[in-house]
Amino acid sequence: MTDPETIYDVLIVGGGPAGLAAAQYASRAKMKTLVIDKSATAGALAYTSHIENYPGVPGPISGKELLDIFRKQALDFGAEHVTEQVIGVKIDSEIKEVFTMETSYKGKSLIIATGAMGRKPAIKGEAEFLGRGVSYCAVCDAAFYKGRIVCVIGNSEEAVKEAGYLTRFADTVYLISPTKELKVEHHPALDTPNLRVLTGMAVTAIEGTETVGKIKLMDQEKKESELALAGVFVYMYGSKPVVDFLLGSMSLSEAECLESNRMMETPAPGVFAAGDVTCTEVRQVVTAVANGAVAALSAEKYLHHRSRHKYDWGK
Amino acid sequence: MTDPETIYDVLIVGGGPAGLAAAQYASRAKMKTLVIDKSATAGALAYTSHIENYPGVPGPISGKELLDIFRKQALDFGAEHVTEQVIGVKIDSEIKEVFTMETSYKGKSLIIATGAMGRKPAIKGEAEFLGRGVSYCAVCDAAFYKGRIVCVIGNSEEAVKEAGYLTRFADTVYLISPTKELKVEHHPALDTPNLRVLTGMAVTAIEGTETVGKIKLMDQEKKESELALAGVFVYMYGSKPVVDFLLGSMSLSEAECLESNRMMETPAPGVFAAGDVTCTEVRQVVTAVANGAVAALSAEKYLHHRSRHKYDWGK
Repeated sequence: MTDPETIYDVLIVGGGPAGLAAAQYASRAKMKTLVIDKSATAGALAYTSHIENYPGVPGPISGKELLDIFRKQALDFGAEHVTEQVIGVKIDSEIKEVFTMETSYKGKSLIIATGAMGRKPAIKGEAEFLGRGVSYCAVCDAAFYKGRIVCVIGNSEEAVKEAGYLTRFADTVYLISPTKELKVEHHPALDTPNLRVLTGMAVTAIEGTETVGKIKLMDQEKKESELALAGVFVYMYGSKPVVDFLLGSMSLSEAECLESNRMMETPAPGVFAAGDVTCTEVRQVVTAVANGAVAALSAEKYLHHRSRHKYDWGK
Repeated sequence: MTDPETIYDVLIVGGGPAGLAAAQYASRAKMKTLVIDKSATAGALAYTSHIENYPGVPGPISGKELLDIFRKQALDFGAEHVTEQVIGVKIDSEIKEVFTMETSYKGKSLIIATGAMGRKPAIKGEAEFLGRGVSYCAVCDAAFYKGRIVCVIGNSEEAVKEAGYLTRFADTVYLISPTKELKVEHHPALDTPNLRVLTGMAVTAIEGTETVGKIKLMDQEKKESELALAGVFVYMYGSKPVVDFLLGSMSLSEAECLESNRMMETPAPGVFAAGDVTCTEVRQVVTAVANGAVAALSAEKYLHHRSRHKYDWGK
């Protein structure tokens, strides 16, 4: 359906909330828009089973359902959509190019909205129960564990902080550190009465039926034990912006995220970034969506100015 | 229902998309939250009849309906809501205070989300047809006027730019300037074939039945004429952040908007700002909503740190 000779107004890499909101805004502004998405079922939102804090959609709704709504809105306004894996980009000329496993696409502007992913699930049962008791976001999911027992796996300040957040909802929160020491000095969350810290313990398996029911633990003397609980929050490495396909074509911050200003402009002319791939402290669906909308408005402004300049030269 | 001696965790002034999203996020994070709203039917969104570009809610939906969803979500998570006019704030101490016509409220943090309003409708029929052919936002509403005739009233660069945007949708766009000259040097939009500029013309009335059908014009020699059209975009003075109730308690930028950083923090500790009241280039529902969510997360962080400090002092 997509002609390889077509030059799009806006190419969008990523079909999550940021990319689809950008596509909706861009296509509604009559820009010829293509979304290149690796998979409609990958990505942080697609893995989320219950969302109840997206303003405007009371829910609970699954991440996949919410993505389907975003995608339909974008397509209804005329955006095109292909499911292909992006393997490289060329952004140093006026016409940007995106290379996929199958072909390549050209565009006058580029919005990068590839998101961030946690590390690959590594604990036995982690992938299986993702979205059904396994979570990577306490702010997103804590409210679902009112009065229940949960654990946080990790030893970083982030893990401690998120465990503290969970204590306000859960009956008991176990903070399980693989190391003997936490990587954090005294933190007030550690004094919360319903937080219990287990150090030097590896989680070897997450088990359950429909949803998580228990975890298996092993201490440093290889002694095994079990813990019955309903939720497992994994904070082992944090999530990492998906930027590998850029192959050095854009400079990254130390945290390997894309720097952008409030208008979602990157330092590269005509290249915008939105959502979890950017250097942001807040990773919520609605902030990604707002980023996408702003990126599209900025792309529209960029194209307009560009054509204005052209016009002036032509005189 | 609200006890004047209660100290809230978060007071939110404004019940539009930013304020209600902040309330939803704050109350879901178990903060005691109060929204103080002047009126559920005032505000820029409440006046909007058709919204089809809010990601997640395909619409078209009226602004009032969308606000009702936002409000219900906030209340369902436990936020309280009062309809009172705010007349002043006190923010220079740890406990902030908000004064209304009826009483006053105390809170540990304050989120200002009072929005921005266009000038008061001044043209005959403008108020009557607001949301039914009269609009203050081309990006929001242009798509509803495909193939139709519209006008933009104004002489500023913004008016010219918005008229240019509308030419991509409408059959013909009239740019009607009350002054003989536009307040803008040559602009490429002015060369668009379907844009017609009428200068030195006052719009004396907007008329129609269900929706706008025509406008009445008067030139500088008082000669009257009429123009049949479907949409009237008024860009006479731009919209103005609602900050009058602050009475100098916070410093404003030259544009009389509230300065905030990306975490929606203002220079005043414990005071956050979100939505159209901030100094923003983008005034879309979804950006206001995202601002509100971020402001609530920042308020949560502020309260947490404050209690941490307290804790440390107590030792």
